[in-house]
Amino acid sequence: MSKRIVVALGGNAIVTEDGTASSQMASVKKTMNTLAQFVKAGDELVITHGNGPQVGNLLLQQVNGSSKGNPAMPLDTTGAMTEGSIGYWMQKGLDEVLSKEGIDKNVATIVTQTQVSDDDPAFNDPSKPIGPFYSKEEADNEKAAHPDYVFVEDAGRGYRRVVPSPKPIKITEAPVAELMLKNKMIPIVSGGGGIPVVKQSNGEFKGVEAVIDKDFSAAKLAENVNADELIILTAVDNVYVNFNKPDQKKLENVSIAELEKYIDEGQFAKGSMLPKVQAAISFVEQTNGRAIITSLDNVDKLVEGDVGTIISK
Amino acid sequence: MSKRIVVALGGNAIVTEDGTASSQMASVKKTMNTLAQFVKAGDELVITHGNGPQVGNLLLQQVNGSSKGNPAMPLDTTGAMTEGSIGYWMQKGLDEVLSKEGIDKNVATIVTQTQVSDDDPAFNDPSKPIGPFYSKEEADNEKAAHPDYVFVEDAGRGYRRVVPSPKPIKITEAPVAELMLKNKMIPIVSGGGGIPVVKQSNGEFKGVEAVIDKDFSAAKLAENVNADELIILTAVDNVYVNFNKPDQKKLENVSIAELEKYIDEGQFAKGSMLPKVQAAISFVEQTNGRAIITSLDNVDKLVEGDVGTIISK
Repeated sequence: MSKRIVVALGGNAIVTEDGTASSQMASVKKTMNTLAQFVKAGDELVITHGNGPQVGNLLLQQVNGSSKGNPAMPLDTTGAMTEGSIGYWMQKGLDEVLSKEGIDKNVATIVTQTQVSDDDPAFNDPSKPIGPFYSKEEADNEKAAHPDYVFVEDAGRGYRRVVPSPKPIKITEAPVAELMLKNKMIPIVSGGGGIPVVKQSNGEFKGVEAVIDKDFSAAKLAENVNADELIILTAVDNVYVNFNKPDQKKLENVSIAELEKYIDEGQFAKGSMLPKVQAAISFVEQTNGRAIITSLDNVDKLVEGDVGTIISK
Repeated sequence: MSKRIVVALGGNAIVTEDGTASSQMASVKKTMNTLAQFVKAGDELVITHGNGPQVGNLLLQQVNGSSKGNPAMPLDTTGAMTEGSIGYWMQKGLDEVLSKEGIDKNVATIVTQTQVSDDDPAFNDPSKPIGPFYSKEEADNEKAAHPDYVFVEDAGRGYRRVVPSPKPIKITEAPVAELMLKNKMIPIVSGGGGIPVVKQSNGEFKGVEAVIDKDFSAAKLAENVNADELIILTAVDNVYVNFNKPDQKKLENVSIAELEKYIDEGQFAKGSMLPKVQAAISFVEQTNGRAIITSLDNVDKLVEGDVGTIISK
């Protein structure tokens, strides 16, 4: 049975200790080799991914290398840049893997905007740290240059800028991805959560200084392209309760109600497993599909049958 | 009569004296407002563009801001980054313009690879200057760190790295653009000439340190998407012979044979009008289409009827 699936890749699918382009490309190619199994199994595949380490490195280079005549680009534009670079690595990698397998399919990255609302409460509570660490003095200087920036002290490691993380309303370019899917093509969409854009009341479309959680945008993307499955690939094979405790319990088939009880108990780490679980719930609630949270290593088994933590109605 | 047209934009359609993102976005939005006239006239539109100033600035920031743990990205990856950033500015700008006009059309940037040949003679003659200017000593240090880099002295302004400028063989993602066109969508394709990629004899796809002329890739794109017209927009309304001399002559309707005679006479400046004329010839030779070279300001008139320099069989 052919399924339409959205696969969300985490940072571990791209980055290694070595931040060179060649090392990241090699890592991406390995990941694409794994994902090609879905294509060989006849599934319709949409790929989305994070960009944390890449946009962090780019921002750092931009801040250190900028000048009056060559200013650092804002977050929406640097996000777009990483959609370009990581998307290119992925499509080149997958093109090569498919070509070696004799599979003739077009792969392309769509630069993606994700609509968010001006009224999102996240805009009153910037909390997502981005970019370099600063000393108190450096942070004060940055704040003087950019009065709208917010800095927080980060666990004794220095000061960091924090930005809002609003919820995605709609993936603007989802119809392009859906058209590609209908025509047996493989789209790479909303990298890094997509570029956050607000449709203002004056009719202007404005890119905002914010970061959208890539798991939430993956869930919205899966909803917008009418996917059957959302697969969130991460470092662990399953979601656990009482994680790393003697009585830890692996979750396999699980309902929304059960997961919501565990969320209320504080079972899942903020900024780590919690958004994945919330994103999975959101997709399953809004659609007739199901969501799976498992590891990249488990894809071999996933192509054969059910593994990982499976969330359904 | 609805036509399928590829519009190639030069740097003047994007960059202003002010290199900030907000200034470039404003400039791009103005350009998109102009190009929307083709959409209103019922034409199928593909947009492609240069990236010279943007990739130059990005390379400069990367070189100045890189470190061992955060290395500067190579040319293929930085080219992909500018496809992301400029593409985002364009699709956001055009989305807004069309939305205000009440036109419901999807616009999306496709991260684009342009196939080139390992055997292209350009690889033996790197001649396209890129990135920052160096002193003799800095250039020697860079050369020591990257033995494969080639540096040349640039008209007394210092030393610059030069890279090959191979000819495009095929726009890898052209089928995606063509699918979008058939479905009334507007693709933005092969920005900066596309990312140069070689299919190696071992089956590996390799991004190369090179720059593809955006007018040549625009011509290949127009050929690959079966366009009726290639429109190259530049700073002047027409191609001229004896340009800036008392007997300068404006070219209006012109044949390939006539243009080739002028090329032999050395009428067109290398790196400026010459590649545009050669790209126009290449498209017209390979297809049943025609090519137009004119200014962005002339688009108002072009929508009504023939203006600029028109090259046909």
